[in-house]
Amino acid sequence: MIDYDRFLSRAGEALLQSAIRQMGVMAAQLPDVISFAPGYPAPETFAWDEYREIAGELLRGRDGRVLQYGPTRGYPQLLEVFQQRLRARGIVAAIDELMVTTGSQQGLHLVGRVLIDPGDVVLVELPSYTGAIAAFKNAQATLVGVKQEVDGIDLAELDEVHRQHVRAGRRVKLLYLVPNFQNPTGLLIGLDKRRRLLEWAQRADVLIVEDDPYCDLYFEDAAHAADTRPIKADDDEGRVIYLSSLSKTLAPGFRVAWMQAPASLITKFDTAKQSTDLCTSGLDQRIAYEACRRGLLDRQVPILRRYYQRKRTVMASALSRELGDLANWPHPRGGFFLWVALPTGVDTQGMLARAMERQVIYVAGRPFFVDGSGSHLMRLSFSLPSAERIEEGVRRLADVVRAELEARTASEGNDDVGHGSTPGR
Amino acid sequence: MIDYDRFLSRAGEALLQSAIRQMGVMAAQLPDVISFAPGYPAPETFAWDEYREIAGELLRGRDGRVLQYGPTRGYPQLLEVFQQRLRARGIVAAIDELMVTTGSQQGLHLVGRVLIDPGDVVLVELPSYTGAIAAFKNAQATLVGVKQEVDGIDLAELDEVHRQHVRAGRRVKLLYLVPNFQNPTGLLIGLDKRRRLLEWAQRADVLIVEDDPYCDLYFEDAAHAADTRPIKADDDEGRVIYLSSLSKTLAPGFRVAWMQAPASLITKFDTAKQSTDLCTSGLDQRIAYEACRRGLLDRQVPILRRYYQRKRTVMASALSRELGDLANWPHPRGGFFLWVALPTGVDTQGMLARAMERQVIYVAGRPFFVDGSGSHLMRLSFSLPSAERIEEGVRRLADVVRAELEARTASEGNDDVGHGSTPGR
Repeated sequence: MIDYDRFLSRAGEALLQSAIRQMGVMAAQLPDVISFAPGYPAPETFAWDEYREIAGELLRGRDGRVLQYGPTRGYPQLLEVFQQRLRARGIVAAIDELMVTTGSQQGLHLVGRVLIDPGDVVLVELPSYTGAIAAFKNAQATLVGVKQEVDGIDLAELDEVHRQHVRAGRRVKLLYLVPNFQNPTGLLIGLDKRRRLLEWAQRADVLIVEDDPYCDLYFEDAAHAADTRPIKADDDEGRVIYLSSLSKTLAPGFRVAWMQAPASLITKFDTAKQSTDLCTSGLDQRIAYEACRRGLLDRQVPILRRYYQRKRTVMASALSRELGDLANWPHPRGGFFLWVALPTGVDTQGMLARAMERQVIYVAGRPFFVDGSGSHLMRLSFSLPSAERIEEGVRRLADVVRAELEARTASEGNDDVGHGSTPGR
Repeated sequence: MIDYDRFLSRAGEALLQSAIRQMGVMAAQLPDVISFAPGYPAPETFAWDEYREIAGELLRGRDGRVLQYGPTRGYPQLLEVFQQRLRARGIVAAIDELMVTTGSQQGLHLVGRVLIDPGDVVLVELPSYTGAIAAFKNAQATLVGVKQEVDGIDLAELDEVHRQHVRAGRRVKLLYLVPNFQNPTGLLIGLDKRRRLLEWAQRADVLIVEDDPYCDLYFEDAAHAADTRPIKADDDEGRVIYLSSLSKTLAPGFRVAWMQAPASLITKFDTAKQSTDLCTSGLDQRIAYEACRRGLLDRQVPILRRYYQRKRTVMASALSRELGDLANWPHPRGGFFLWVALPTGVDTQGMLARAMERQVIYVAGRPFFVDGSGSHLMRLSFSLPSAERIEEGVRRLADVVRAELEARTASEGNDDVGHGSTPGR
């Protein structure tokens, strides 16, 4: 037998699995389980009829380029569509500042590859999106978390953490933010804080990576379009690398997202993408383009807002009813996620075995925290399951939490005081 | 203005552009040009009607997973199809040794990421595929070329080069080979040499990366299926990482390829792919699966063999007629490429300006050589242009070559003797 570990690169040895992907695989293996784990959009919202019609037209064979290798930067007309959509978000982008990516995950990967040397510091929110954590860790970044308040990252702590690492001789290159309906917390960064974050990045000479997949999915009972104004919209000097995606609005199976960055960086990302996958799927890009051009995306988005708002309400109401005495969470004003804090000492990772027995799953909080905290938190996605399944799943989850607390109380009676709060539990 | 160079990683600074991609962009900008540059399959061979029908069925919305996030390793039924196709090539693969990639370019990227540390040596043929060169260089490998004979890489030189680098304290990890109808030379590695390469890799404790996109595209007037037997078919100990693709047979716009490797390495590639693009396009994978399941791919392949064989014959005949006195090339027994040697001293890179004036382009030879040689060579793809365009393009090319030789003769009269053969020219 060959020992393949001898052949691994240091990056290969250290590769980080995505906690969410693991839960997705697990859910696929358990068909009866009610899954609040993956942040999947609901397929019944997909515009199947229109996609069928569009695909039928594209596949008539009149334009061979639909199924040919295409430009690494993406289908030029699709870039123009993204340029227009950005304008509606207050962002003025030149075409040479834009690039299609195979999902925003690829954008994050390219950022890591082009900008991060091993040991460079990337500042992230506590908690932050696990896909970004994985992309930056796999580029061998040192990830440093900064406390998050209800209106976004804590500026004083951000400044202090930055100073510490600069003093320690480290290069702090990036600040990664999900300003709109963050994964996992569902929080919005306040408008004032967005401006202050941009000013801070200018002073600290750090680039901001603004990851904005949920921008369009605000809930009209709690937020306005104006609340989602991207940091990039006020970026006059090219301080922000902006990522957005069609995965949450059209469909994630089309791996179509885009990034905006200063032209010289886009040139680098383009070159890196060439050797990563040459180009994004031609058919996916064309369907996405037609869906935008024909107004389908614009018609979809208000429907999606109402659809996910209703599911949010169902889940939040069920949680209040079933777990209101034990848990708390920020009320989601958009997006896919509800971020639940259980009593300190509950370990949501350990509790998963019990949850799986009761046929309900979620994503445990700790993988979202680069400082190893967050063990009493969990992310619940309300995007995929039906209202009925959400109600039933929350009932199951409440049973699981109560059983866990009872088991804890029983075991604490026979146990060291304080042992229950060690992070490993 | 922000100086973004200050933010680049060392990998980001050193990123290598693909010469072929650059030519593709150039060709797209010049619609009247006859392009022998990119190795694009011919869209008129694509099974448009069947794809339209398949897409129509898949997009009825009865299976939401078609447009949902999918497993990083790929659609499970598609992996089974690849398992069967490998069996027909003499390769026995377990399912956990297989993974879908977003084109074989992604497979090469993942190999670089998981296995290559900066400075590790990757041995490649002289010449070798530029996409692989870029993927490994961008992983900061040291690429070392080994002379290629008509039946494949020179074993004695391979052994000597390997010894040199081991003696110099370098880690030689990979040997990258395209055994079937290599890009750019069109050459096949002989069956005996394939076995000896595998034995060599065992003795030298090097992994082989076998890149096999053209396997099915042998020309029946010059080769048999048996001539294309993969090295992987005789690999009992897991020494070979095998890559293949549907880009040259179904269509490259579907970014669907696959890799086979020992299960423990596939686990690593899977984890790396998670943070690279999460998963390959769902619609593309499903269309590919249906095309295989319904026998479409098996029906297509013999048609493609005849189609590309005819174009090969047209180009080879035109070249013999127009340039037979000045150029030579190995007769392609499969694949997309004709590899033309011009008289030593002609710089095909420099000649491109003249070629573009005459509205014909190709890929200059030097980027395929990691040792900087190959300046009198050029790669001509016969896959995309029509027979008429091939004839006309070769006529234009012959004019270009003759004009270049005349200009050289004229300038050599006024120039340093020998200056004409310096590599920089």
